[in-house]
This record gives sequence, C-alpha cells and structure tokens, in this order.
Amino acid sequence: APKQQKKTTFSNRGMTLEEDISLTNKYYLDSQIAVVHKKPTPVQIVNVDYPKRSAAVIKEAYFKQASTTDFNGVYRGKYIDFEAKETRNKTSFPLSNVHQHQIDHMKAVDQQGGICFMIIKFAPLEEVYLLPSKQLFIFWDEQWKGGRKSIPYAFIKKEGYHIPFHFQARVDYAAALDKLISELEEN
Amino acid sequence: APKQQKKTTFSNRGMTLEEDISLTNKYYLDSQIAVVHKKPTPVQIVNVDYPKRSAAVIKEAYFKQASTTDFNGVYRGKYIDFEAKETRNKTSFPLSNVHQHQIDHMKAVDQQGGICFMIIKFAPLEEVYLLPSKQLFIFWDEQWKGGRKSIPYAFIKKEGYHIPFHFQARVDYAAALDKLISELEEN
Ligand SMILES: [Mg+2]
Ligand SMILES: [Mg+2]
Repeated sequence: APKQQKKTTFSNRGMTLEEDISLTNKYYLDSQIAVVHKKPTPVQIVNVDYPKRSAAVIKEAYFKQASTTDFNGVYRGKYIDFEAKETRNKTSFPLSNVHQHQIDHMKAVDQQGGICFMIIKFAPLEEVYLLPSKQLFIFWDEQWKGGRKSIPYAFIKKEGYHIPFHFQARVDYAAALDKLISELEEN
Repeated sequence: APKQQKKTTFSNRGMTLEEDISLTNKYYLDSQIAVVHKKPTPVQIVNVDYPKRSAAVIKEAYFKQASTTDFNGVYRGKYIDFEAKETRNKTSFPLSNVHQHQIDHMKAVDQQGGICFMIIKFAPLEEVYLLPSKQLFIFWDEQWKGGRKSIPYAFIKKEGYHIPFHFQARVDYAAALDKLISELEEN
C-alpha cells in the first residue's frame, strides 16, 4: 500500500507524539537549547545482502526489546532521559502503557543523578504533561500493593508540568524542565 | 556459515573494543557506577512480515547514517558521550577514522555542557586511552588548514588518560573520567 502523505497543517493532527518531540528536538539542536535524540529501534540483524554497486540490504532481522527509554540527551549540562506515551483516555493514564524495563532504567538513571520523566499526551484533550519520575515511581510501586492501575488525570495536571504547543517546538518541554530542575535543586 | 565461537580467555583477543566497553557498561550498571548504553545501529525498515504465531520478521531494511556517537549516559549526575575507535597503527591515530557528523554532535554536546571524549585503542600495543574532545577538536580543525591528518601516539599518551584493563571492567574508563571531570571543573 502507498505510504499515507503526512498532513502539514498547523494542528497536531496526523503527527504522533514521538514525531512531534523529534521535531522539537531538532529545533532545540539548531537553536543550541538542548541536544536530545530518539534512540533507534534496536534490531537483531541476521542476514545482509551486499549487492554490487548498491547499498547493503538487510534481508532478515528481528525487533529486540529496548533496554532503555525513548529519548536521552543533555540540557544545561544535565543528563535528561524520558519516555513518551500517548493515551486515548481522558480521565487517567493506564500504567499498562509502561514497561518494567523502562522503570528499571529510569530508577538507575535517577540513582546516578540524571533527570528522568515521562511526557504524557492525553490525545482526546490535546494536552501534554511532563510527569517527574518520582511521581511515576510512586504509582508504579503502589500498583503491586493493591494500588490503582492508572494515574489520575487530575494528579498529573496538579503534580506534573503542562507542556504548551508552539509552532517551532511542538512539544516545548524546556520550560517545564526548568521548573523540574529548580524543584530538584531546592530539595 | 556458522557463527564463530567467541573465545572466553582472560585476554582481550577476539573481543572488539565496542564489545569490551559494553561489558564494562554492564558491570558499571550492575554496580551502580554509571548508566551508559551503546546506541543501536539505526536502520530504515521498509518491509515487515507478521507471520501467525511467531515474531515479526523484517524482510527489507537499510543501514542509516548515525547522527550521534556510539555511547552516551550518565555518570555522577553528568551527561557523558563518547565514540570508541580502534586502530591497527602504532604511532598515530588517523583522523580518517572519525566522521564529520560525530564531530558536529560532540561540539553540540560540548556547547551544552556535556562531557565528550573518544576512547582510542592502539590494537597492536593493547593500549587504550581516553582523549578529551577538546584535544580531538584541535587536530580535527587543524587538518583542514594544512595540519596533519592524524594524532600522534605520543600526544595521546601525554594529553589523554590511560585506561587500564580489569577483569570485570575490561575498559575501565571511570577513573580516567574522574580525572577529566576534575580538570574541567578547575577551568
Ligand atoms: Mg514511547
Ligand atoms: Mg565506534
């Protein structure tokens, strides 16, 4: 089937959260605001063809489990690391969207003094929030002790940081990150 | 052809520098010394098969140019980023081993306050050094102005930091990094 043409309207429609973040990262890189990249999808390459006079073709490969999160990089000298998640829900963010290996990685980064968070998009509301890893860990750990299996929207709105949409920085998380860094430095 | 069995002797033979660094990173992660990962090779996936009852098979894909370096992560709260390079030379490290996009990325990270370096292995000497990006940039930029096309071994030995081989941390770069961080903090 032919690849569907991407819409290039001013709205967010047709773009995934990850694509919007990658465009933002490109803008941040060009403007010397931050250096953040999406990690490539890890694949196990089994068979490669090297035809004469043209590029190597991977003929057999398999998707591997990622051992980290989607994005990492450096901002104001600090290591930042985050996972992007979109939900169709309006009232809560289901923890089933998160994987244990992502939490393990974020806890390791946290312990090493890096700055970890999730960027959560409530798609039907067109609202995006930065949720610090500390808050995520509380809900994650509680779910195994009879706690709820999702994080309420109201909690994320209150404890997270709203991320505005801007034309050049579609998921403009730098200001939210500034607030998070100030809070971490106060404690 | 059957895959060649890896030797598991105490020596470095049969292991690439990248494999040795990845084993070191695993040890650092398990010991809570640092969180550093190798970035997956980026591939452009064109065609995927989804057979019933088994894993998806990538049937056609192409290697993409990496836009960053081999490794990045967090150490003592700091963002670190580096490229690993092996040379068969004994007297100098040829700059042809380095790509412009790697330099561009390292300069962007440097500007953002991250810590960048190269880990260079002189294979015939079995010696490994950490060379700070600052020194690399000098030789890189000079080569276009009539400067030499390689970095002398003697320079790397003097201005870089020797990285010892240890059984659990085969490329034990943490102590070298401590020295680099102290020097950066003094200036
Ligand atoms: Mg994601
Ligand atoms: Mg390399």
